[in-house]
Amino acid sequence: MRNLVLVSLAVLSISLLPAQLRAEEAPKTAPAPRWALAIHGGAGVISKDMPAEQRAQYTAGLEAALTAGKKVLEGGGTSLDAVQAVILTLEDNPLFNAGKGAVYTHEGTHELDAAIMNGRDRSCGSVTGIKTVKHPILLARAVMERTPHVFMMGDGAEQLAAKLGLERVDNSYFDTERRREQLDRAIEREKETGSWSDTFGTVGAAAFDTHGDLAAATSTGGLTNKRFGRIGDVPVIGAGTYADNDSCALSGTGFGEQYIRNTVTRTIAALVEYKGMTCQQAADHVMRERLNPGDGGVIGVGRHGDIVWSFNSTGMFRGAADSNGRFETRIWEDE
Amino acid sequence: MRNLVLVSLAVLSISLLPAQLRAEEAPKTAPAPRWALAIHGGAGVISKDMPAEQRAQYTAGLEAALTAGKKVLEGGGTSLDAVQAVILTLEDNPLFNAGKGAVYTHEGTHELDAAIMNGRDRSCGSVTGIKTVKHPILLARAVMERTPHVFMMGDGAEQLAAKLGLERVDNSYFDTERRREQLDRAIEREKETGSWSDTFGTVGAAAFDTHGDLAAATSTGGLTNKRFGRIGDVPVIGAGTYADNDSCALSGTGFGEQYIRNTVTRTIAALVEYKGMTCQQAADHVMRERLNPGDGGVIGVGRHGDIVWSFNSTGMFRGAADSNGRFETRIWEDE
Repeated sequence: MRNLVLVSLAVLSISLLPAQLRAEEAPKTAPAPRWALAIHGGAGVISKDMPAEQRAQYTAGLEAALTAGKKVLEGGGTSLDAVQAVILTLEDNPLFNAGKGAVYTHEGTHELDAAIMNGRDRSCGSVTGIKTVKHPILLARAVMERTPHVFMMGDGAEQLAAKLGLERVDNSYFDTERRREQLDRAIEREKETGSWSDTFGTVGAAAFDTHGDLAAATSTGGLTNKRFGRIGDVPVIGAGTYADNDSCALSGTGFGEQYIRNTVTRTIAALVEYKGMTCQQAADHVMRERLNPGDGGVIGVGRHGDIVWSFNSTGMFRGAADSNGRFETRIWEDE
Repeated sequence: MRNLVLVSLAVLSISLLPAQLRAEEAPKTAPAPRWALAIHGGAGVISKDMPAEQRAQYTAGLEAALTAGKKVLEGGGTSLDAVQAVILTLEDNPLFNAGKGAVYTHEGTHELDAAIMNGRDRSCGSVTGIKTVKHPILLARAVMERTPHVFMMGDGAEQLAAKLGLERVDNSYFDTERRREQLDRAIEREKETGSWSDTFGTVGAAAFDTHGDLAAATSTGGLTNKRFGRIGDVPVIGAGTYADNDSCALSGTGFGEQYIRNTVTRTIAALVEYKGMTCQQAADHVMRERLNPGDGGVIGVGRHGDIVWSFNSTGMFRGAADSNGRFETRIWEDE
């Protein structure tokens, strides 16, 4: 508790520094990286009482995803391929709420969303209401690159997946015991309190590559106990996902409705583009001024390879890597 | 033609004036209105050879919609109710691509989208893939006010409509001969040229009320010949629809994919909020710098009741009314 207070005071003092001073800090500590990568595995109420074994699993999952993205960027690959590599790893990991391990809808099924955006030309692809595509991020990318559309839903999106030969699975492939228990608890709690969900999670990545291009991607199973047909912020460009070489690449995670209302990622990018804030200042500003405590968090990479994260929940599973040798994962504010 | 050149030159000279000067012009001509309303009925390639009778029908349709919104605002009603009243009128009018008169999908059916946003608190509601709800805008509003969600699609959204007792219709209710012919022509043209659609349309409204609040709403049948499952910009908050008392209320109309990639309405609002542009300057900037010629247009109302429209297509069906007695409709740049 004492540590938490100290950390909070430290955070508070940093945020009271003049904006200019904070912006100039980064170059003093390290040269701009040739490539950079930020990832997240969801934000929310994450107890510090988490068993050591479970914590180690999350850390290993984040490290594996970071490594997949790092490999692409180190080899001179694109930011687009890097964020896709990260998301594929996390979609396959049942610990995270995307792909295998996605939460359940109110009806006991899974409906997945994903989005990807290329900061080079702001091309993008999103899918929502996906039930049978193993890797929704690959379908989002196919929408971006292989159709005249940018956003597709449900059966129509799945027909596209079939046509393109993307790997399909039965909806039950996404089942996990742990998520089923979360749904049962959420339904019980809803009966008692009327509060229909407090479990959310997403996976996301933002990257800056050696060609100077930014990209972002996000994938999710949405909210536990969500009603059939609900679309969250993930596939909404400018809400949960945004990338533009003029500002930054960002992926959000949290209470999606709040992210849509506040066009969270576009607003952060706009503060950079039009107000001259750094990505970190802009992300902190939006988390503090436009969202409510507990709503979630965001990770990102700026156009100089500056890695950003900010959240107003108790924790956010996240990681960062860059060409200067940074390679780290974190869960709470200070660890 | 000579007139067109003169108008173009006039527009050019205005756009070359220093931004500050343009911003200060408005107060000189009229006091800020107590309420204001801007509407549109779609943008695109609109031939000046349109028969006089058809033109009169469009004008009458726009005037009826303006009148419906004006009545709400004059009576001290909210901007939210005013934009809804406008959209209901246009959804019932088979001339416009929303509700009755919606274009056909590639499969020969109708899938409707709508969104509404309250600038007072940025609350919002969107629906997509609606097949059997007579007035999609009422369902969007219900999502905003009567569910914990902000964005719903397809069957799930229709189940909500059933639960709330909104008026339902068979999908064939939306059929019109004219739109069917458009689909047939589009399919023929696609076979010949590979270009799958060039017909788009939307209806939209933005209002400023006597309480000082802004709101925006948009409704559409999407693109003629669109593929099953395609989602356009209308229900994407920050793309086709946005409202915030801090900046402006906006509704876009045009090639939806471009509006999503460029987060058109949120970008205009951000230029006002963070860069100090007027709404008109911001709208012109985005139409010119971020979109391609022919992509479409946008209408809006600023936080001082300033009415805005801007488009880069040959025409945009639109209208404006305010408490200073303005009441006009237009189709092309100069008439």
